[in-house]
Amino acid sequence: MQNRLPEEKVFKDPVHHYVYVQDRTIWDLINTKEFQRLRRIRQLGASYFTFHGAEHSRFSHSLGVYEIARRIISQFERGGFPDWPREERLLCLCAALLHDVGHGPFSHSIEQVFGTDHEEWTCRIIREDTEVNRVLRRVSPDFPDKVAQVIAKTYPEEIVISIVSSQLDADRMDYLLRDAYFTGVNYGTFDLERILRMMRPHRGHLVIKESGMHAVEDYLMSRYQMYWQVYFHPVTRSSEIILRKIFTRTRQLHEQGYAFAWLPDTLRGLLAGEVALEDYLTLDEAFMQMTFIQWTKEADAILADLCGRFMHRRLFKYATFDGEPDPELLSALADSLRAMGLDPDYYLEVDFPADLPYDVYRPGEEADKLPVMLLGEDGEVAEISLKSDIVRSISGIVRGKHRLYFPGDVMASRAGELPPEWRKVLGLH
Amino acid sequence: MQNRLPEEKVFKDPVHHYVYVQDRTIWDLINTKEFQRLRRIRQLGASYFTFHGAEHSRFSHSLGVYEIARRIISQFERGGFPDWPREERLLCLCAALLHDVGHGPFSHSIEQVFGTDHEEWTCRIIREDTEVNRVLRRVSPDFPDKVAQVIAKTYPEEIVISIVSSQLDADRMDYLLRDAYFTGVNYGTFDLERILRMMRPHRGHLVIKESGMHAVEDYLMSRYQMYWQVYFHPVTRSSEIILRKIFTRTRQLHEQGYAFAWLPDTLRGLLAGEVALEDYLTLDEAFMQMTFIQWTKEADAILADLCGRFMHRRLFKYATFDGEPDPELLSALADSLRAMGLDPDYYLEVDFPADLPYDVYRPGEEADKLPVMLLGEDGEVAEISLKSDIVRSISGIVRGKHRLYFPGDVMASRAGELPPEWRKVLGLH
Amino acid sequence: MQNRLPEEKVFKDPVHHYVYVQDRTIWDLINTKEFQRLRRIRQLGASYFTFHGAEHSRFSHSLGVYEIARRIISQFERGGFPDWPREERLLCLCAALLHDVGHGPFSHSIEQVFGTDHEEWTCRIIREDTEVNRVLRRVSPDFPDKVAQVIAKTYPEEIVISIVSSQLDADRMDYLLRDAYFTGVNYGTFDLERILRMMRPHRGHLVIKESGMHAVEDYLMSRYQMYWQVYFHPVTRSSEIILRKIFTRTRQLHEQGYAFAWLPDTLRGLLAGEVALEDYLTLDEAFMQMTFIQWTKEADAILADLCGRFMHRRLFKYATFDGEPDPELLSALADSLRAMGLDPDYYLEVDFPADLPYDVYRPGEEADKLPVMLLGEDGEVAEISLKSDIVRSISGIVRGKHRLYFPGDVMASRAGELPPEWRKVLGLH
Amino acid sequence: MQNRLPEEKVFKDPVHHYVYVQDRTIWDLINTKEFQRLRRIRQLGASYFTFHGAEHSRFSHSLGVYEIARRIISQFERGGFPDWPREERLLCLCAALLHDVGHGPFSHSIEQVFGTDHEEWTCRIIREDTEVNRVLRRVSPDFPDKVAQVIAKTYPEEIVISIVSSQLDADRMDYLLRDAYFTGVNYGTFDLERILRMMRPHRGHLVIKESGMHAVEDYLMSRYQMYWQVYFHPVTRSSEIILRKIFTRTRQLHEQGYAFAWLPDTLRGLLAGEVALEDYLTLDEAFMQMTFIQWTKEADAILADLCGRFMHRRLFKYATFDGEPDPELLSALADSLRAMGLDPDYYLEVDFPADLPYDVYRPGEEADKLPVMLLGEDGEVAEISLKSDIVRSISGIVRGKHRLYFPGDVMASRAGELPPEWRKVLGLH
Repeated sequence: MQNRLPEEKVFKDPVHHYVYVQDRTIWDLINTKEFQRLRRIRQLGASYFTFHGAEHSRFSHSLGVYEIARRIISQFERGGFPDWPREERLLCLCAALLHDVGHGPFSHSIEQVFGTDHEEWTCRIIREDTEVNRVLRRVSPDFPDKVAQVIAKTYPEEIVISIVSSQLDADRMDYLLRDAYFTGVNYGTFDLERILRMMRPHRGHLVIKESGMHAVEDYLMSRYQMYWQVYFHPVTRSSEIILRKIFTRTRQLHEQGYAFAWLPDTLRGLLAGEVALEDYLTLDEAFMQMTFIQWTKEADAILADLCGRFMHRRLFKYATFDGEPDPELLSALADSLRAMGLDPDYYLEVDFPADLPYDVYRPGEEADKLPVMLLGEDGEVAEISLKSDIVRSISGIVRGKHRLYFPGDVMASRAGELPPEWRKVLGLH
Repeated sequence: MQNRLPEEKVFKDPVHHYVYVQDRTIWDLINTKEFQRLRRIRQLGASYFTFHGAEHSRFSHSLGVYEIARRIISQFERGGFPDWPREERLLCLCAALLHDVGHGPFSHSIEQVFGTDHEEWTCRIIREDTEVNRVLRRVSPDFPDKVAQVIAKTYPEEIVISIVSSQLDADRMDYLLRDAYFTGVNYGTFDLERILRMMRPHRGHLVIKESGMHAVEDYLMSRYQMYWQVYFHPVTRSSEIILRKIFTRTRQLHEQGYAFAWLPDTLRGLLAGEVALEDYLTLDEAFMQMTFIQWTKEADAILADLCGRFMHRRLFKYATFDGEPDPELLSALADSLRAMGLDPDYYLEVDFPADLPYDVYRPGEEADKLPVMLLGEDGEVAEISLKSDIVRSISGIVRGKHRLYFPGDVMASRAGELPPEWRKVLGLH
Repeated sequence: MQNRLPEEKVFKDPVHHYVYVQDRTIWDLINTKEFQRLRRIRQLGASYFTFHGAEHSRFSHSLGVYEIARRIISQFERGGFPDWPREERLLCLCAALLHDVGHGPFSHSIEQVFGTDHEEWTCRIIREDTEVNRVLRRVSPDFPDKVAQVIAKTYPEEIVISIVSSQLDADRMDYLLRDAYFTGVNYGTFDLERILRMMRPHRGHLVIKESGMHAVEDYLMSRYQMYWQVYFHPVTRSSEIILRKIFTRTRQLHEQGYAFAWLPDTLRGLLAGEVALEDYLTLDEAFMQMTFIQWTKEADAILADLCGRFMHRRLFKYATFDGEPDPELLSALADSLRAMGLDPDYYLEVDFPADLPYDVYRPGEEADKLPVMLLGEDGEVAEISLKSDIVRSISGIVRGKHRLYFPGDVMASRAGELPPEWRKVLGLH
Repeated sequence: MQNRLPEEKVFKDPVHHYVYVQDRTIWDLINTKEFQRLRRIRQLGASYFTFHGAEHSRFSHSLGVYEIARRIISQFERGGFPDWPREERLLCLCAALLHDVGHGPFSHSIEQVFGTDHEEWTCRIIREDTEVNRVLRRVSPDFPDKVAQVIAKTYPEEIVISIVSSQLDADRMDYLLRDAYFTGVNYGTFDLERILRMMRPHRGHLVIKESGMHAVEDYLMSRYQMYWQVYFHPVTRSSEIILRKIFTRTRQLHEQGYAFAWLPDTLRGLLAGEVALEDYLTLDEAFMQMTFIQWTKEADAILADLCGRFMHRRLFKYATFDGEPDPELLSALADSLRAMGLDPDYYLEVDFPADLPYDVYRPGEEADKLPVMLLGEDGEVAEISLKSDIVRSISGIVRGKHRLYFPGDVMASRAGELPPEWRKVLGLH
C-alpha cells in the first residue's frame, strides 16, 4: 500500500502556522466523521465564560498534537539517531492525532457524575466498527490495536508513548501554546522550537539535552502559571460546578422517575448507563447546549434554574478562605439557604482546586506520567529537578485556597436572612 | 442614575489585549441573555471548515467593536475636539455593542432562503420586551429607539453612525483583525493604533488626518486580501452552498407537506414565516447543528445526504472557469447527473463571488456605507481615492472567477457516465 | 575535506527564531574578521534618525539572507525536485551570506560622491588576500571566483543567482521582514513560510506555484508600503542629504588643499581615490562617526556645521511640492540664503525619491532583476503581472512628490529676509 | 511658560508601538546633543556578540522608560487617585527620560577598571553647563537639581523615585521587554498593561493591587530567566572579560609610561583621572571601537591581541566548575600559560556571575531598591514574598557556577604543554 500522499497537504494553524500532512492514513483519519465531530467539542470546556476567546475545539488541538509529534519524529529522522525506531513513525502520528477522539462535551463534569471515561471511549472508537477503525485497519489488521495500546500506555516501546503522553509531550506542549493563544493570556509561551531541537531518543527513552534545560524550565513555569491563571480560574470553576450540579440533578430526577419534557434517547441511555457507541458519537456540545436550553423550561425548578444559569452565564459567586471553612458555620449557612428555598446540595459548594490530580511538575507524584530526563554532555541521564534549582523550587509548592460558591444574585436581595457572621464573608450586606 | 461603574471591569481579549467596561449600562447589556446568546453563533459561519481556528463567536467580535468605539471616543474626549458631540458617547457605545445582536446561526444562508433580515431582528431585540430593552430603557424611555436608529443608519448625528458603520468603522476594523488572528492568516493586520490617533470629528463627519493616509491604505489592502483569501475562499463557499441547499430542500419539503421525523416548533415557525421573538432567540448554532445531525436520519435522501455532508465535512468539489460556463454544456452535465440519480438543483451550482455586494473599497458604489474622507493640513476634506494612488488602483479591480461546485466524491466512481468534455474539466477520470 | 559540522550550530535571531549552520565553510566565513566587521555597519544607514529601533547591522541581515537561502535549498532537497542542481548548494549559501560583505558605512551616500561601488569591494574581498578568501579556497581553488560570479550575476546557473538576487530573493525577503521588525512598523510582514513552500526549481529557473500567488501579492504590497513608509521617509532622506553634503564638502576642501585638523590616512586615501583593501576594511560606522565628531571642531564652518547637524540630529526641514518647484523662484530663494551667509549648494536641495532606480515591482523595468514567474497547474510559466490584478494595478503607479530641504532652524529666526512667497511655503513666519 | 506641545509628537517604537510626547520640555530634552549621544551607546554593551539582534541603543531604552512612566502617571491622573501628587508629573517624566544619560560606552567594564560612575556623570550632565541643563532650567531654576535628586534617590517624594527606580520600575520593565525583543529570546515577556493597571499611589508609596500579583510573579520569573539566559550568558561574560583586560592593560601601560601610537586626548584624560565633562561626552562606542581597531596595530603585543580578539570576536573559551577551581591546580595552569608566553593576568580568569549584586528579587537584600508591595482588598500592604508562593520559592535560590576563561584557540595547538589533568577539563586534547 502506498501511504505517502502524492502532494503534501496543509492546514493553516494560528499556533504552528501550518500543519503538514504527508500520509494518506493521517489525511483519511482527519476526514472521518468521528474526528470531524471534535469540531463540536471545545478544548477548554466552559472556560469561554472566563476567556471569551477560548472557543477553540479539540479538533484544532488534535491537529496541533499531531503536528508537534510530526516535527519531533522528523527531527529524529533528519538527525539519523540510531535509537529512534523508524518503523514506529506512523503509529506514533496516529496515536497523537487520535488521543482525544473519545472526548465528549464537558467531559470532566460528565465523567465525575456518570463515571464514564473518555480514554475508554477513545479506545472503543479505535477498535470497534467506525470509520476511524476502517482507515487504521488498511495499514494492517493489528494496527488499530497498537494505536489503542499507545494511548492506553501499554505499548512496549516507551519512546512512542513519551511523545504522545509524558511530562513533556506533544499533547501538553500544544495545549499550553494553544490555550494561551486563544485566551490571549501572556503566560503559556515557551520556546517550542528549541525544546524540539534538544529532544533525543536515548536507549528507548525520550530525553532532553542538558543545554536545553532552561527552555524546559520556562515551559514548566508557563504550565504553573497557566494552571493558576486559566485552568483553575475561579470563574471557570464556578461554571464547572454548575455543570456538575446539572448532571447530578438530572441523574437524581431520573432515579426518582421524573418525567422530563425533553429527554432525547441518547441522554436516556447515558442516564441508564447504556450508551451505544453510535449514540455516544452524537453527544457533542451542540447537543448538550440545545438540551440545556430546552431544560430551562422544565417543571423541575432546580434543573431549570441551573440550566438558565449556565446558558445565560448567571454563575455562582465565590468567597475565598485560607483554610477549610468551619463545618459548623457552613451548616448554619446551609440551614438559612434551605429557609430561603434553596437546596444547599445544589446551591452551595466548597471547592479546592489543588485537590485535583494536577499537573505542576512533581517528580514521582504522577506515577502515570513519565518525568523529564536530561541528557548531560557526559552521557549521564538525570531527572530534571536534580539539575534545575528553579524546578526544584516550584515543584514543592502546595498551593490553592478553599473557595465557597453560592448564588450571590439571589442571596443579595435576602442578605438579612443570612447568619450575620456570613454576610461580610460573602460580601452581601 | 449613576451610570459609571465604581471600578472599571475588564475582559481579556486576544486581539485588543483588554476590553474595558466603565459604564453600568454596558456591563448590564453584556450580561443579558440575548447578548450571551451570541456566544453560540460563530463570527465566520462555516469558515471553520477551511480555517479550523475560526471558531470565534459574535460575542467576542461584538465586545471588540465596542472596545474600538470606546477608544475612538476616548481619544476624541482627551483631545477636547469641539466637533465631537460628547452627549452621544453612551449611545454610540451601545450601538457598537449591539449592532449584531440579531444575528442567527449561518445568517447569510438562512436570509437568502427564508428572506429574514438580521438587522430587523436586531432592532426588534432592542425595541421589544427583552432584557436588552429593559437595560436600555433605564437610561431613558427613548434610548432603545435611538440605539435602533443608529444601527438602522437613520439617526441624525452622522458621526455616531460613522463610528459604528462606515467604510472605516469599528465593526470592520475589529473583524479584520479578529478574523486574521483566529484563522491565523498573515493578511488582515494593520496599524489600528495609528488609524485611531488620526481620526477626527469634523463638522459632523468622521475624517482621517491626511498624514494617516498610509495606514488607511494598508487597512484597505488588508481588506482586499482578507476577502479573497478568507471570506471568498472556495472551500468556505462550498460549505455555504451546501447550507443553502439544506435550507432550500427543507422549505421545499415543508411546502410539499413532508413529515419531518425531527422538526422542533421553532423551525416549524421559521418555515411558516411566523417566528416569535422569544423563539428566534433559541435559534443558535447548537440548535442548528443538533438538527442537522438528526436530519442525517431523515427519510428524504437529499436532506439526509446534504446534512451528512455538512456535519462530516463532505463538501462539494469545484472547478474554476475564466468566464461563465457554457449553458448548453452545463445542461448536458445536469442531464448526466440526473441519470445518476443526483438532482442537479441540489448537486450542481455555479458560483461567482464577485456578484456579491462585496466590500473592497469602491467610491460611490456602496451607497449605504459612508466613504473614507481625508482631512488635509489646509483643512480641506477629500475622498481617499482622490489622494491615494494605491486606493485608486485597487478600487477599479473587477475580480473573481466562476466556479462550478459538484459532489466529486460520488461522481468520481461514475466518471464514465459523464459527458467526455466534462471529465477533464472536473478532474474526474 | 569534511565540510559538515559534527553538530549543527545556531544563532538566535529575532526574525527567523534561529539561524542554523551545518557547514564548516559557513561557520568559518562568519568568523572571519571581514564578516564580523559587518556588525559595525547598520543595515539601514541613517534611518535610525527616523525609526530609533532601526539599529540593526548588516551582520544580522547577512545571516538572515543565508538562512532563507538555506531553507529554500533544504525544501528543494526534501522535495527531491530533479531540476535543482544539488551540487550548487554550498556555492549558493556562501553567495547569500557574503553578498553584502563589501558594504561600507553609509554606502549609498559615499558611493554617490566618491563613485565607489560596494559590489566591487565585495568581489575584491572574496577574490583577494583575505580571511574570507582563505576559507573559500579551502573548498576548491576556483570557489572564490564562482562565489563572486554569483554575486556579479554572471554565473551560468540562473537559479543560483535567482535565490540570491531577483525580484523575490532571499535578500529582499529578509530585509523586508527584518526592517519591519526593527523599525516596528506593521507593514513588511508577509507569509514567508508559504512563499518558500511554493518555490520550485523549473528548467533552470526559480518559479512560484500559482497557488502561492496571493502570498506573493502580499509580499509585493508590503514592499510598496515599506518603500514609502520607511525607505523613502522624508526624515531619512533629510539625513541622507546631509551625509552627501558632508562628503561633497570634504571632497571640495581636499581639492582646494584645505588642511584638515583631523584626517586619518584611510580617509586621505579615499579622497585621493587610492584605498587599499586592508584600509577599506577599517572603514566602518565607528570610524565615520568618530570622524564626524572630530570635524565638528574643524575650522571650515560648513563642514563643522553639517557634521554637528548629523551627529546631534539637527536635520533639514522640508516642504512638499506637487510638481517640480519653479526654477526662478528657487533661484530667488538661493539668493536670499546666500545673503544670510548660507551657501545654497550645501543648504538647499530638491529631492525626488521616485527618481531613484527603486524597487517596487515593475515588469521589464529593472533589467537586472529577474522577474517573478508563476508556474500554473498546466505546467505553463507566466510573469506574475499577467495573472494578478493587484500586481498589474500597482506596478503602473508613478508616485512621489518633490521635496525641498532647507535648514529650518537657522532660517526661522531670519524669516523676514526671505522672499515673501517662500515664507508660507516653508512654514516660516 | 506654556509647556504643553500644540500637537502631540510620536516616536514609532517596536516595543511600545508608539512613544507619545506631550510636553515641550520632554521634546527639547530629546533633541539635546547629550541625549542624542545615547544613540551611540548600546543598551546591552557587548551582548551583541552573543545575540546579534541586541544592537539597540540606550536612546531607545530611555524613550521606553519615559513612555512607561508616562503611562503610569496618566493612569493615576485618569483614576483621580488622591495619593498621587499631580505636581510631580513633569519631574518624574524628566527623571525617567534622563536616568541613563551619563552612561558611557561599555560602562560596567570601564567603571570597574577606572572607578568612574555613570550615575555621577548623569547628575553632572543635569547640573552643569549643558543643553540638558538649559532645557531643565527653563522649567524653574531648581528643576535640574530636583531631577538629579530623583535619580540619586534623595528626593523626598518616594513615589516619584519608585516609578523611576525600584524593584518594579519603568526602567526594568522597559529593559526586560526591550532586551527580549531585540535578542529574540522568548523569556522576558510579561503583561505590562495589566501591571500598569494594577499600580496605585498609596500613602506616598507605589503599590500593586493584590489581584495583580500573578502578573508580577510572571514579571519576576521573566527577570530570573533573562538574567541567566541573556545577561549572564557565558559568551557575553567572555567578551566583558576581554574588555576589562583591555582597560586594565591600558592603565598598566600608561602607568609604565608606554608610548601609545594612538591615544586621543580624551583617553589620556581618562587614564590620568581628569576628564572634562565636554570630553566625556565625546566618549561613545564609535570612539572606543575606532580606538580598539587602531590598537590592534600597537607595539604592545598583549593590548594588540586583546583588541583584535574583541573587534574580530575571537573570544575566550570557558570551562564550567561546580565549586571554585582548586587554587593549586590553577596555579599550575598559570605556570604553563606563562611558559607558552601568555601572561595569566590577561589570559586566565575565574568568573562567578552570582557574585554580582544581581537583580533577581530577594527581599531585603538590595537595600537601595524599594521592594514590591501588594495592596490587599482589606487595605493592608504586604511585601510580595509574604503572599506569593512562587516568589518566595525563587527568591531563595543561590545559583551560578564558576567558569574559567582562557584563550582556547592558542592553547589548542599547544595542548601537549598543559598539565595533563587540565587537558580534559578544558576540552583540549
